[in-house]
Amino acid sequence: MKSVDEPRLREIVGEKNIKTDPSDLYIYGSDSSVHHAIPWVIVRPDNTLQIQKIMEYANQDKIPVIARGGGSGMCGQTVPVQGGIIMDMKGMNRILEINMPDVYCRVEPGVVDDDLNLALKPHGVFFPPTPASSRIATIGGEIANNASGVRSVKYGATRDAVLGMKVVLPSGELVTLGACTRVEASGYQMHKLMVGSEGTLGIVVEATLSFVPIPEFRCMGVANFDSLAHAGEAIGAIMSSGAIPSMLELVDSVAIKAVNKTMNLGLKEVAASLIFEADGMVKEAVDYEIQKMKKICEKHKGADIWASYDPKERAKIFMGRKKLFPALSKYDDSLASTSLADDMAVPYSKMAEMAGKIHEVAAKNNIIMTAYGHCGSGCMHTKILMDTKRKDQWQSARKAITEIYEYVRSVNGTTSAEHGIGLSKAESFKAEKSDSLNLLKTIKKALDPNNILNPGKLMQAPDDWVTSSDLRYSVNS
Amino acid sequence: MKSVDEPRLREIVGEKNIKTDPSDLYIYGSDSSVHHAIPWVIVRPDNTLQIQKIMEYANQDKIPVIARGGGSGMCGQTVPVQGGIIMDMKGMNRILEINMPDVYCRVEPGVVDDDLNLALKPHGVFFPPTPASSRIATIGGEIANNASGVRSVKYGATRDAVLGMKVVLPSGELVTLGACTRVEASGYQMHKLMVGSEGTLGIVVEATLSFVPIPEFRCMGVANFDSLAHAGEAIGAIMSSGAIPSMLELVDSVAIKAVNKTMNLGLKEVAASLIFEADGMVKEAVDYEIQKMKKICEKHKGADIWASYDPKERAKIFMGRKKLFPALSKYDDSLASTSLADDMAVPYSKMAEMAGKIHEVAAKNNIIMTAYGHCGSGCMHTKILMDTKRKDQWQSARKAITEIYEYVRSVNGTTSAEHGIGLSKAESFKAEKSDSLNLLKTIKKALDPNNILNPGKLMQAPDDWVTSSDLRYSVNS
Repeated sequence: MKSVDEPRLREIVGEKNIKTDPSDLYIYGSDSSVHHAIPWVIVRPDNTLQIQKIMEYANQDKIPVIARGGGSGMCGQTVPVQGGIIMDMKGMNRILEINMPDVYCRVEPGVVDDDLNLALKPHGVFFPPTPASSRIATIGGEIANNASGVRSVKYGATRDAVLGMKVVLPSGELVTLGACTRVEASGYQMHKLMVGSEGTLGIVVEATLSFVPIPEFRCMGVANFDSLAHAGEAIGAIMSSGAIPSMLELVDSVAIKAVNKTMNLGLKEVAASLIFEADGMVKEAVDYEIQKMKKICEKHKGADIWASYDPKERAKIFMGRKKLFPALSKYDDSLASTSLADDMAVPYSKMAEMAGKIHEVAAKNNIIMTAYGHCGSGCMHTKILMDTKRKDQWQSARKAITEIYEYVRSVNGTTSAEHGIGLSKAESFKAEKSDSLNLLKTIKKALDPNNILNPGKLMQAPDDWVTSSDLRYSVNS
Repeated sequence: MKSVDEPRLREIVGEKNIKTDPSDLYIYGSDSSVHHAIPWVIVRPDNTLQIQKIMEYANQDKIPVIARGGGSGMCGQTVPVQGGIIMDMKGMNRILEINMPDVYCRVEPGVVDDDLNLALKPHGVFFPPTPASSRIATIGGEIANNASGVRSVKYGATRDAVLGMKVVLPSGELVTLGACTRVEASGYQMHKLMVGSEGTLGIVVEATLSFVPIPEFRCMGVANFDSLAHAGEAIGAIMSSGAIPSMLELVDSVAIKAVNKTMNLGLKEVAASLIFEADGMVKEAVDYEIQKMKKICEKHKGADIWASYDPKERAKIFMGRKKLFPALSKYDDSLASTSLADDMAVPYSKMAEMAGKIHEVAAKNNIIMTAYGHCGSGCMHTKILMDTKRKDQWQSARKAITEIYEYVRSVNGTTSAEHGIGLSKAESFKAEKSDSLNLLKTIKKALDPNNILNPGKLMQAPDDWVTSSDLRYSVNS
């Protein structure tokens, strides 16, 4: 292991912003993925100049630097597989400007999504990419992973809301990318390249973000289906009808059962449910969208269809979906819910088939998998429930994942819709991007010639990370 | 001048798809800018394989290659300043797929914008970036320049509508970038980097585009103002009110006079007019937006305010704005309308001040300039009317442009909103991007090591292109 110049780092960030205690190093070695690796040191810079100095040092000494936000990444994005410095960005959590006349805000990367939305709320606007982890996810992390969530069908992903940014390059240079205007055609859209680059090209130290008005009216509806195929047809029909849902979620039978089992919600155990929502400033317009979606669900054999503007009723409809993630974790004490293949995107017309494929693959490999997701944006979620102590379950999971991603690619889908690639999804990512892999490596090499920024991820990650390197679980042989 | 291997090119594209006649070379030496330079040869490939072969040859022999669409670029983007091959992309103009269930289409780069929209119309959808030149502008050119138009305030720019693409790299390699789903978080968003790169990083040979429903209702309104400041305040107030205009256009007094003078439209000669529009599927929602904008205009001393859903009335309201570009060309027989500084973007709160600055600078430099633009997206347009034979007018124009762009940068604006940089705007572009210029050059060098793709543009263009190189006008000394 290379040694790190602690006194130098201490001088840059100050005594209280550096951690080398083994327990801290252990904790910072995990994110929300299955992976684990111990960093050499944790620094928590307070300002851009400190970051520039850290990068200058790291670049000179070729020390890996991994920027980390809320640690909510699902695929090992911030796990320091080659050791090095974990740069905890949560010390930089200032909202620098909320500029209402010019319709943008400027924030530091450590700002938590919910905190930004809390600050925007009195102005009647919100920052829409909001992933499910918004209570802890930082704007920097959302940028790094091009995060999005349930409302991306209407409002887009993080890449769509980023107007510009300031970035510290591996050399320590500070650059300004993009602009603060709605449109911009001034050469290379470098800020859009930074979105989704998972901390491998630069450290975002400030972001200029757009926001949108909080709608006055919100109506949510639900429809049950006796087959996945019918639910899938309804999804395709809604999306091609010109309807503009603000949310369109699929929940499959496994998911419904999981919620009933662990939460006792008494949901009707059907093959699939669709939850749909519309929002807007004018009730008639929201009605129009809701009626359109209800009719399409009816046409495709949806049953028990109802919708409501009432916040309590809406909460009831969404409860099953909302509780799904914790429900899966509690499903069985001996099983852990892992995010090994958790957010693929496929064309709308393949949504139902994708869900069916997940069921088929799970059954074949003797693991439990569920299918749910933000169908309106093409995103399908799944979790693998397995006994992480059993080596054979990891092997089954590996096989299942490979099959599932092969299907995703065969229908022109993409490996990740909103969680990123990190380590967990490198195999499928590299297969999907096989013809542009050299190009991606060229970009990485050009911008980070010493390969110090989050090395070993994306193109550099091994195909079989699950069995070829450290896991946060102790697996019996 | 380097020689080009004509027989080899002839073999690749076929006899009828190569041009070397001096008159052809002359014509292809211009676009819609003030610049001119003679290419060595024009090829019109018919398919991707031909483009790959051309690039392989050009890369090996280090011959410049300039992809060209409709030739509607305003800043010299396709003018071959270092000679070489003009690659006319209009031979590749097939609409490959309109996939309604999955809400995307795939097109070749030579497809004309209006032709795409004509093909989409029967499906009830449209491709929204549409610049004013949509009758001739190609999708490839729109991607190269991140084009947008009057409706970008609501629907965004080309970058927002591009889901994925196939690109031939300088080496001749074919790569697939992006995806065909609404969201994607699979690593570097390379397709977003290609948008706006002005043919300097790769040749787009296929694009996957999203589209949106054609609204059922459209209402347009107008308000006159006795001062630019009041019109500017109204713009800021509209944009920060949460209103969602589908268009918000400013037309200043010079523009109104120009239209009246040349078209005899009898427009009221006020300091400024705002044209606003809302669209949607539900009349009540469109009403809501229009009422909101009308009230804001009233509050900011707008007069003669009216709005209409009637297509004829709407056409009447928009007539002045629509005829502006030709009106400026006809303003005075001895004056040409030039696009030397024509599409800057500034924050909404600076719109009126920007228009005032244009007037001030024009008066000081004894040239005629007008201010109009897509205020809803921050885009301000101006044209410089001048006697292109007079060297002193070019010098005045140069001075005026420098002053205007200095102002744009001083208020956090950006050099180009929708037309791109090319040659004309290189000076301001380089000043604006000064801290990231090395990064941009690094990207260019990494992707095009032999510098064959559209060399001499963007970062490589001289600061003072107007006087340091060829113009399409004969200037008396």
